[in-house]
Amino acid sequence: MVKDEVISKAAKAKEASRLMGALSTSVKNQALLIMAEELLERADEIVEANKIDMAKGRERRLSSALLDRLLLTERRIDEMAEGLKAIAMLPDPVGEVISMWRRPNGLQVGKMRVPIGVIGIIYEARPNVTVDAVGLCLKTGNTVVLRGGSEAVNSNKAITKIISEAAVRAGIPDGAIQLIETTDREAVNILLKLNEYLDILIPRGGAGLIQTVLKNATVPVIETGVGNCHVYVDNEAELKMAEKIVINAKTQRPGVCNAMETLLVHRDVAADLLPGLLGTLKNDYGVEIRGCPETKALVNWVQDATEDDYYAEFLDLILAVKVVNDIDDAMNHIYKYGTKHSEAIITTNYNKARQFLQEVDAAAVYVNASTRFTDGYQFGFGAEIGISTQKLHARGPMGLPELTTIKYIILGDGQIRE
Amino acid sequence: MVKDEVISKAAKAKEASRLMGALSTSVKNQALLIMAEELLERADEIVEANKIDMAKGRERRLSSALLDRLLLTERRIDEMAEGLKAIAMLPDPVGEVISMWRRPNGLQVGKMRVPIGVIGIIYEARPNVTVDAVGLCLKTGNTVVLRGGSEAVNSNKAITKIISEAAVRAGIPDGAIQLIETTDREAVNILLKLNEYLDILIPRGGAGLIQTVLKNATVPVIETGVGNCHVYVDNEAELKMAEKIVINAKTQRPGVCNAMETLLVHRDVAADLLPGLLGTLKNDYGVEIRGCPETKALVNWVQDATEDDYYAEFLDLILAVKVVNDIDDAMNHIYKYGTKHSEAIITTNYNKARQFLQEVDAAAVYVNASTRFTDGYQFGFGAEIGISTQKLHARGPMGLPELTTIKYIILGDGQIRE
Repeated sequence: MVKDEVISKAAKAKEASRLMGALSTSVKNQALLIMAEELLERADEIVEANKIDMAKGRERRLSSALLDRLLLTERRIDEMAEGLKAIAMLPDPVGEVISMWRRPNGLQVGKMRVPIGVIGIIYEARPNVTVDAVGLCLKTGNTVVLRGGSEAVNSNKAITKIISEAAVRAGIPDGAIQLIETTDREAVNILLKLNEYLDILIPRGGAGLIQTVLKNATVPVIETGVGNCHVYVDNEAELKMAEKIVINAKTQRPGVCNAMETLLVHRDVAADLLPGLLGTLKNDYGVEIRGCPETKALVNWVQDATEDDYYAEFLDLILAVKVVNDIDDAMNHIYKYGTKHSEAIITTNYNKARQFLQEVDAAAVYVNASTRFTDGYQFGFGAEIGISTQKLHARGPMGLPELTTIKYIILGDGQIRE
Repeated sequence: MVKDEVISKAAKAKEASRLMGALSTSVKNQALLIMAEELLERADEIVEANKIDMAKGRERRLSSALLDRLLLTERRIDEMAEGLKAIAMLPDPVGEVISMWRRPNGLQVGKMRVPIGVIGIIYEARPNVTVDAVGLCLKTGNTVVLRGGSEAVNSNKAITKIISEAAVRAGIPDGAIQLIETTDREAVNILLKLNEYLDILIPRGGAGLIQTVLKNATVPVIETGVGNCHVYVDNEAELKMAEKIVINAKTQRPGVCNAMETLLVHRDVAADLLPGLLGTLKNDYGVEIRGCPETKALVNWVQDATEDDYYAEFLDLILAVKVVNDIDDAMNHIYKYGTKHSEAIITTNYNKARQFLQEVDAAAVYVNASTRFTDGYQFGFGAEIGISTQKLHARGPMGLPELTTIKYIILGDGQIRE
């Protein structure tokens, strides 16, 4: 029965995707705007459904952080609607001919952006992901199969009902938005192997979810999420700038993947930088510091950093610190412990900046800026479906073009191959 | 023991990949040229090793087609060497900054092409793939783990030894080229799940191999190969051009994925086109024709086409034929039976050409040209690692840029996130 639901919904999404790809930009934009209107219009239905999820969440003793993520208020619904309007305003990547060239035999060969097809999204508690993912997928001509967290199932049902009805009214093919409603976990296992209907899967959530998807999926997956990010302060850094960047990268929003987790400091500036900076982090921002022996020798209240600390994505106000010999030592540390997400060097030395940019293998490599900028909005994409931490298809923040693929179009006048 | 070999070799390839990514283009090109020289210099070693494979192949009663693919002559070794030289001459995509823009806060954000890392190639009998794959991977700064067919293991060992020695001598990091030597099939199963060391897997071979890899791999896979390609002759086609293209698409090289397998003909021109064209295909080119009832009514010697025939990738001098009502009927047939590889329309009608280009979902969509052009060389890439039939990362012929990924490089002067 679980299988029936999953397969029949995925099949509908696939059927709808054939029509979806040919929709004009104006129909898609109009649909996004009407979906936004209807979310506001019918906000009370969403709030009612969310109350059921909240009550069940309290019964199940979810943490207050989780309950906060689950909660939908009028203001949050308003934000979801604004998100859809913003997506409507973005340029449509579908149909863009990225390049076209002429071959010696007169054939014109071009690369055109087209929708991927059917996108499966497996996500956790936050019901705003529902609206966001649907908006981005529809804008790019894809249809979508959603599997949200069981805690949010009533909220997700209400949201999906409202936006689906609005979408169909605006000319989006029936079936383009599918929500798997069963809370049976078997549904996820079925989705992972549904190559016949799903073109890609994007998991959005914690490391556990992502690992489960990666290890078991036969459908191609775009991996998002884990970031053990470093800032390396070189001996030729402007220390004032370094301090500002380190504080920002650690504390501006510690619970996200592009926050710094380990600070690496060149031996020659450690004594100048660390006592003041670590004191500020501790006293003004409440950051717990775990350091190497050399860090501890400079700042006696620092706790021991273990090997595990250097591997950790704390997602919290905790910072590991290590004094290094030079840029190579820093890059070796990053190579060993990093997750290839976002890495920064603070230096005024041209050659070292260039070397770091060249040799560090990560989705985003920074010179003299906070790692917190690894984000679709901050990069100027106007939207973000997630941050890819894999190398295939998309790497780093994914905007609308990353939800498309290409096809070659070839225009001839009778060419045959000799 | 199989596991030890596979893991230790993959680990070496990963270690080497860190150095490999930073190599200059001139070192890589020089290495390719020296590898080419050494192949020629030591051709006798390869021929000797190949004789062992050939003798075993005959013992195992391999088909003559397979034995021919396995055979290495001086001329074929010469071609392999020429292939390496050609790769050396191509532009190096690594380091190319595809785009770079400035954000309102002054940050410069750019996308730079970088190597993928470690590429696993699982392939079948033809030992020339060994040289080809190594050349393409090294040029793009990747290291490579090869698993060739057991029939060719001695040839592959000899080839890999020669090109590895030459590569290292020219400055390529030791370990960059790894050949799995065991013929135990368990080696493939291990490779499929070696996410820790392999960044991607590319299977090259028959449908059976590709399906095994797709169904079992947790390492990201680039799917290559299967093509059930169609040519649709519209009622507004130039029939002389249509004939020429149909003959070319079916017969110029029937055993490859971009050859036409089914001909679709608009009802209004079927009587004008089919009797002459099918007669030519049969009599001049030895093509066996399997047609729908309407085709048979026009050409009485045609055999029945079954449902299976429309699904088939014959890879042979066999053609399925179907008379259709119009372009929509043709596109519905392609949607149902096609494999999204290469699809062509022959028409003089602008609107129908545009509609076909827009609505047919395939790696390559043609107007008025033979499907046989779906090929990296024919598209002007100068090289080809395979033809992707998936939508993620790369679609259609893959050249050098498709063996790279990107990283974002971000240049600041102290920017922090507000």
